[in-house]
Amino acid sequence: MSGDMDEIFAAKGSILIAGVLINGKETDIAIDETGTIASVEERTGRRTGIDADIVIDGSERIAIPGFVNTHTHAAMTLLRGYADDMPLQDWLTQQIWPLEAHLSGGDIYWGTKLACLEMIRSGTIAFNDMYFFMERAAEAVDEMGIRATLAHGFIDLGSEEKREAEIRATEALFAHIRSMGNPRIKAAVGPHAVYTVSPGGLAWCAEYAAEQDIGIHVHVSETWQEVADCVAQTGRRPPQVLDACGCLTPRTVAAHGCWLDRADCALLGERGVSVSHNPASNMKLAVNRAMPYHWLKEAGANVTLGTDGCASNNSLDIFEEMKFASLLQKFAWNSQTLLPADEAIAMATSAGAHALGTGPGLLAATAPADIVLVDRRAVCNVPLHHTDSNIVYACSGAAVRTVLCSGRVVMFERVVPGEEAILAGAAEAAAALVRRREEAG
Amino acid sequence: MSGDMDEIFAAKGSILIAGVLINGKETDIAIDETGTIASVEERTGRRTGIDADIVIDGSERIAIPGFVNTHTHAAMTLLRGYADDMPLQDWLTQQIWPLEAHLSGGDIYWGTKLACLEMIRSGTIAFNDMYFFMERAAEAVDEMGIRATLAHGFIDLGSEEKREAEIRATEALFAHIRSMGNPRIKAAVGPHAVYTVSPGGLAWCAEYAAEQDIGIHVHVSETWQEVADCVAQTGRRPPQVLDACGCLTPRTVAAHGCWLDRADCALLGERGVSVSHNPASNMKLAVNRAMPYHWLKEAGANVTLGTDGCASNNSLDIFEEMKFASLLQKFAWNSQTLLPADEAIAMATSAGAHALGTGPGLLAATAPADIVLVDRRAVCNVPLHHTDSNIVYACSGAAVRTVLCSGRVVMFERVVPGEEAILAGAAEAAAALVRRREEAG
Repeated sequence: MSGDMDEIFAAKGSILIAGVLINGKETDIAIDETGTIASVEERTGRRTGIDADIVIDGSERIAIPGFVNTHTHAAMTLLRGYADDMPLQDWLTQQIWPLEAHLSGGDIYWGTKLACLEMIRSGTIAFNDMYFFMERAAEAVDEMGIRATLAHGFIDLGSEEKREAEIRATEALFAHIRSMGNPRIKAAVGPHAVYTVSPGGLAWCAEYAAEQDIGIHVHVSETWQEVADCVAQTGRRPPQVLDACGCLTPRTVAAHGCWLDRADCALLGERGVSVSHNPASNMKLAVNRAMPYHWLKEAGANVTLGTDGCASNNSLDIFEEMKFASLLQKFAWNSQTLLPADEAIAMATSAGAHALGTGPGLLAATAPADIVLVDRRAVCNVPLHHTDSNIVYACSGAAVRTVLCSGRVVMFERVVPGEEAILAGAAEAAAALVRRREEAG
Repeated sequence: MSGDMDEIFAAKGSILIAGVLINGKETDIAIDETGTIASVEERTGRRTGIDADIVIDGSERIAIPGFVNTHTHAAMTLLRGYADDMPLQDWLTQQIWPLEAHLSGGDIYWGTKLACLEMIRSGTIAFNDMYFFMERAAEAVDEMGIRATLAHGFIDLGSEEKREAEIRATEALFAHIRSMGNPRIKAAVGPHAVYTVSPGGLAWCAEYAAEQDIGIHVHVSETWQEVADCVAQTGRRPPQVLDACGCLTPRTVAAHGCWLDRADCALLGERGVSVSHNPASNMKLAVNRAMPYHWLKEAGANVTLGTDGCASNNSLDIFEEMKFASLLQKFAWNSQTLLPADEAIAMATSAGAHALGTGPGLLAATAPADIVLVDRRAVCNVPLHHTDSNIVYACSGAAVRTVLCSGRVVMFERVVPGEEAILAGAAEAAAALVRRREEAG
């Protein structure tokens, strides 16, 4: 490795990752000044010349594409472990909502900084977020150097006044993000769900997203109750309601999908929707059914992976989520062969990148240099019979050593610039948030 | 911290862990020369005198009892990722058994060394093992400094000749371990399961274990097929068959238990059996039912936690296993409150220690100093609203910094003596094992 750590974090030129393992073969990855992969070439002998501004030694590293987390509420890291193991309604009404009522813009900033830090440390370079005070989330993402698609959680509960306020908030976020001019950060619309947004609200979201050519981020069919209530009230299932309002598009990410039936899956596949599987959250909240991966795959839907927020997971580690996804699918649908390791990795990389429009999510020439270097000497990679298996079933995010996003190094050998200040700032924000709730009584 | 790293690993005197967090309170843990916890005292001010040979600074650490893994096949680390995502019978008959047929004593040594390394790095200080060439496993455990209960996997398949050989192997292992005189290492008998051991074999195991006052390690009701076959052949369910042969005792660890019914649970509770829950393995192999934790708890059985072997998990990290256990129980039995974080920790500590007879599994005076120090500054512990929640739902084994077993430091600030040699030796053994299988055709 040439250059010291400061030089690596500041580097804006070309980078060579030399002799890194890809599919068991020693490979050189060349990255150009624009942050794009210029070439990925298997080594046939010792490389003689070094023709990059920075050379990263890959000889004890495995390269994989950066992970994409397609459903989270990043700033909820501040609520990590605040309340667990409670009946869902008590948990929401007695703990989560009363604490969220005291959230400030500063909390969103610190919670999102902490979330980005956690994601970087476990190999995630892009995420799809829905929450509040999203301008402050954008500020945090901008500083941390990774990618995000940010939506204001749009909830009108059938009130016209509330709908107008949500429309203004959505438009303001879009304008703010456009004004930032950061290609890593995109706006989306975030109609929360069919049970929290009126048909008029859903239709506005669909139209605005189409006009601006941006994503739609929505929850769908997470619980049996949601589906049963929707059918009772409208005679239609949640995906049909979303479709009638124009919300099912190739720019749409629909999270959870636990209670989709086969016809729902066919509809989502036809519309080219991306579905975000959130296995850990679904298990922890006991939704009682796993997303039907096999039907979605059959229908050609783009199935991706998300952690959900930290209140209901309580981690943002996509390695862990891949293992939960693969094991939950096998267990819940009674098949030892469902969702094998290579498909779990594809969910977390290429499928996620497709969902958020961040490139092909592959290590290939012309792709953005979103690259994760995993420790080939970590215990989880010994022995190394099959890389995909070790990545999904044996490793956690702690095996990640170095992360590049858009050709910039955001973690090098587990060092993330500013980590101590983020941990301290987030811890203080979380403590102050709890104090404000307690003082309010 | 006084003393350098070599001094810490070599230390045989008293140790003070100063100012470590226990249940959110700054605490001093004093350990005497015999490896026993002398005192656990909350700090009321700055400690003035240092009265130990070694002082470990606990100010950025959380102390928890060391984990106990009550069901594994440690040397199967060498098979990690060799084959996955296959139908169970094909996986066993085409991949796992043909490779196992080439295992040597040397492989068991290296595989167990690697397993111990992985367990130490994720906070496990004792495990319950069942496999072959167990004298070599004992050698590895002796060197690594943690605790193990080792059983030869007793399989007679109804053959008297085979039974005699298994009896000799079991007796030889017992004699060998007794001759080692290492209080950290115990022998057990390992009748594999009701479908692989004859009633005569089971009865011999029960009698021998009672005579020598040692443990019994057995698989029970892992799959629906096992239960159905047993009922068809004997008219009784697996726990009843084991009970009729005397195998259900307070010294027994019964692994899996996925298909136990309520009466089975009552029987196991009455006999004082410890059950080892193996959620990740059960999900990966799609056994289609989760161990009924609520019935076992109701029956007063001692419910513990195990990873199973690395071919079917493929990790030995008990942090991960606690999360799988808690989330699987919630999901499979449709309860948001089942197996809360504190109970998951108790399964992995006090219940496991009770099962293997290694002490109370608590941080308390007179208990063995089996102590894990977790990084309070790791992202998974920020914020720190509730320690138990972070340990179970947010952290992986990578948050462990320092591990003590019986008052000896086996990992200090993530350094384990001899790690590089273990990784290299295990990698080479695994590669040679695969070569031998391929050469045999």
